[in-house]
Amino acid sequence: MTQENSGWVISVTVSPPSLDDNTADADRLINKLKSILKTDTVDVDLPLLKTLPLQIRKWGYAARCVCFKDRGRWKLVGMKGPRDVDDSGVCAGIAADLGTTRVVLRLVNLETGETIGETAFDNPQIEIGPDILERIHFADNAAGLENVHQLIIDGFNHHIDTLCKASGVDVSDVFLLAVSGNTSMAHLFLGLPPGHIIREPYIPVVNTPNTLAAKELGIRLNDTARVFVFPNVGSYFGGDLISGIVYSGIHQQDDIAILVDVGTNAEVVLGNKDWLVACAGAAGPALEGGVSKIGMNAKPGVIDRIQIDPASGAVDLHTIDGLPPKGICGSGMIDMMAQLFAAGLVDIRGKFVEAACGDRLRESDGIRRIVLATAEESATGEELSISQVDIDSLIRSKAAMYTILETICRYVGVGFSDLSTFYIAGTFGSFINPRSAITIGMIPDLPDGTYQSLGNSSLGGAAMVLSSPNALDEAIEIRDRITYLELNVNQEFMNRFSAAKFLPHTDPARFPSVQVKTT
Amino acid sequence: MTQENSGWVISVTVSPPSLDDNTADADRLINKLKSILKTDTVDVDLPLLKTLPLQIRKWGYAARCVCFKDRGRWKLVGMKGPRDVDDSGVCAGIAADLGTTRVVLRLVNLETGETIGETAFDNPQIEIGPDILERIHFADNAAGLENVHQLIIDGFNHHIDTLCKASGVDVSDVFLLAVSGNTSMAHLFLGLPPGHIIREPYIPVVNTPNTLAAKELGIRLNDTARVFVFPNVGSYFGGDLISGIVYSGIHQQDDIAILVDVGTNAEVVLGNKDWLVACAGAAGPALEGGVSKIGMNAKPGVIDRIQIDPASGAVDLHTIDGLPPKGICGSGMIDMMAQLFAAGLVDIRGKFVEAACGDRLRESDGIRRIVLATAEESATGEELSISQVDIDSLIRSKAAMYTILETICRYVGVGFSDLSTFYIAGTFGSFINPRSAITIGMIPDLPDGTYQSLGNSSLGGAAMVLSSPNALDEAIEIRDRITYLELNVNQEFMNRFSAAKFLPHTDPARFPSVQVKTT
Repeated sequence: MTQENSGWVISVTVSPPSLDDNTADADRLINKLKSILKTDTVDVDLPLLKTLPLQIRKWGYAARCVCFKDRGRWKLVGMKGPRDVDDSGVCAGIAADLGTTRVVLRLVNLETGETIGETAFDNPQIEIGPDILERIHFADNAAGLENVHQLIIDGFNHHIDTLCKASGVDVSDVFLLAVSGNTSMAHLFLGLPPGHIIREPYIPVVNTPNTLAAKELGIRLNDTARVFVFPNVGSYFGGDLISGIVYSGIHQQDDIAILVDVGTNAEVVLGNKDWLVACAGAAGPALEGGVSKIGMNAKPGVIDRIQIDPASGAVDLHTIDGLPPKGICGSGMIDMMAQLFAAGLVDIRGKFVEAACGDRLRESDGIRRIVLATAEESATGEELSISQVDIDSLIRSKAAMYTILETICRYVGVGFSDLSTFYIAGTFGSFINPRSAITIGMIPDLPDGTYQSLGNSSLGGAAMVLSSPNALDEAIEIRDRITYLELNVNQEFMNRFSAAKFLPHTDPARFPSVQVKTT
Repeated sequence: MTQENSGWVISVTVSPPSLDDNTADADRLINKLKSILKTDTVDVDLPLLKTLPLQIRKWGYAARCVCFKDRGRWKLVGMKGPRDVDDSGVCAGIAADLGTTRVVLRLVNLETGETIGETAFDNPQIEIGPDILERIHFADNAAGLENVHQLIIDGFNHHIDTLCKASGVDVSDVFLLAVSGNTSMAHLFLGLPPGHIIREPYIPVVNTPNTLAAKELGIRLNDTARVFVFPNVGSYFGGDLISGIVYSGIHQQDDIAILVDVGTNAEVVLGNKDWLVACAGAAGPALEGGVSKIGMNAKPGVIDRIQIDPASGAVDLHTIDGLPPKGICGSGMIDMMAQLFAAGLVDIRGKFVEAACGDRLRESDGIRRIVLATAEESATGEELSISQVDIDSLIRSKAAMYTILETICRYVGVGFSDLSTFYIAGTFGSFINPRSAITIGMIPDLPDGTYQSLGNSSLGGAAMVLSSPNALDEAIEIRDRITYLELNVNQEFMNRFSAAKFLPHTDPARFPSVQVKTT
């Protein structure tokens, strides 16, 4: 597109019709848009055609046109009068991060790209089941699919309404919705049968959906509003990652960078402007604090940082909002593990060192645990402790993560030191202390400043699509460009994994910056 | 498209998915179609996506795909299994000639192009008003528009149902509908406000509509069926003419040909494969038998041919089905006029020659008339006669037609003798005896065999679009290629018109073949 700064809203003025120029109203406008957008075709939906003649006459043959495109094909989505004759409101769009657990909506001014408002809500499909598998099984028959689909559509409608009201924007002034979610969430959002996603050979219904009419999905926005759902690369590499790549800019950089979304699944993209390789693998829920009895999502009273004094072994817990501790989040777990190791409370195998732990070490049913907060100190009235089982699980997860990173880099013949930037995506990722993650050998030992947290890159990429036609093109191009590497858990992978199950690694030379208290 | 013979139905087989090839079901099929159709994008609507995974597995990763395109952009519209595993019915389409008075539907097998069945019905909008103007005025407010729109949609649904039932075709096996009608009828069919069509400067809402979802229009066919409405060149040159051009093949011929749709409006296209010029002008209803008191549409008992013996002045009426006469149709009027003139009953000004008419000539209220059938001879019990007023009106109409033909040919510098073929379009046109039309100077004096009747070319072009992707492309190209000549009723036009108000013309040298009885 030529008008980079104008985003999706194009201001046009056309000459009024005359006996010498009897071009139809729609074609008159479309011809102008075609020349501005340098394209052959601009489609118009029927409801817009019906009102177009009245509006364009009212506005003196000038209009602000909201346009959108689907793989090169432009569509006139909505119209407003020129600003001096039409003060009926903004041209708005909504970017959505459609998470399995949480959904975030951001209302964006399509003309300026500015954020107007934002809201978040729990994915209402949680009532079917907190994890994806349960929802997919539930959707195995048509009634179940319709049910789980309608839950998320209703959730969108309700919270879009609320967000618009709170922001003083009329819902009918929302012309575009860009939705970024993993492959399963996108399927359920579209009402597509997700059954084959989880069954070998793991096949989605669609990789690159068309843009859709919001109406067709039952989403209440402007009558002709369009919905863009980010394309996926496969069942385990979804549109949320494509959106994250758009947001990171990896695909435009000269230098090689890596993007990692840390979670139950570790999704990794490696590349630059010339090539992109991606893979995904199970890292285990331990990284999200999801295995430990006291693991929980970040919220007030949850331990998110830990300091252990190597000299005294004293544990200094930091909780969100400074409240008495009631649990520990994923980034807190990584911090804790790093501190336990650095202070010598666990050895390189992750086993508790009895002498160093002192009376914090307890044992019941043959399982050792270390107490982080006593029943008196905790908010729950119960002891907060981490068991050897929790630690073993965390070590397996961090080893899986490291092995995935090592495998993808080896696949393309890139060393960790070749990485100019190591992007950590996702809200959870933004809380991880890279130094702690390096200390336990979860991520490679790269210089400070190499690690960059992207925050909610899934939402960020969706918002970029709302403000720039280029970003939309990029999303499609990225999907088509990515080489997806199927991780074969072969002997070589297992050997790497075994080596990575030490703290930080069986080969400490890989982590020169990690200083460990030697007892 | 490369597969000329296969029409819109493409048979494909794809390799089943595997761990090494995790392309989504839809993309797997689409990629194959893209390579066959040599295109970048093939869209799929949501309802089809929902059923696609189940179907394609059931059919062993093979399918007959009904595809359609809208200005270069392909869409997968429907699917059936390969013939050896799926005997659930044909892939069908419907071609529609949407006339102001009459609607004709033709059910077509999309794979073979064969006609399966045909039906016709009166345009139900006649209850609003028999002519276009009344309907447009009625549609001036939203409720009126919705009313007149819904009448034709309901009519389509009802008669499509009946046609399909009679032909043993399931309505859900109809994937395409191609509609050819004049600009006003197309607007009312689409529910677009037609008000500016009849108000200077005569501007349609749209010249080239997108193809639409049948569902969006409320037309009940397959769930994802598409509707193509022929584009128009302007308010007075509609999609029915574009369809007629496609059918005639003028746009592909080396030699120059002319296509004339004779009616209240005379629409004319002149050209060849390199250029096309069109114009439209009022010829008056006289040519359709619409002015005379005894004028009526062709039906049993209506006079469609007349012979007058120059020697005796005896009148030999031919009626449809040989029934006693009750009126005269348009082609009968032209025949009658030619015979009156050839037999010397009217002079070159069209005035009755008293001596030649004998006792058939009557007069009342100062207006002369010639009796074709007495009250005893007629089926109505009333005398059937043609007045001087009827004849004057017919002469004005034939003069207008000839002047329009002369004007458009002069505009491009083509003589009548340069015309290789003179196509007469429309059902009415097919009844006209060219020799009679030449005799009265309505059309130029060209050799026998130059004149060709096309029959219902509007329906014919629509049916061609259903059997050939090329024909669809041609319809759009023709629209874009046509130079529309606005007929200015200036002094030069009026001079030509005055000269043409004689029988056959003030300059008889233009009609050397016309032999007139000299008294």
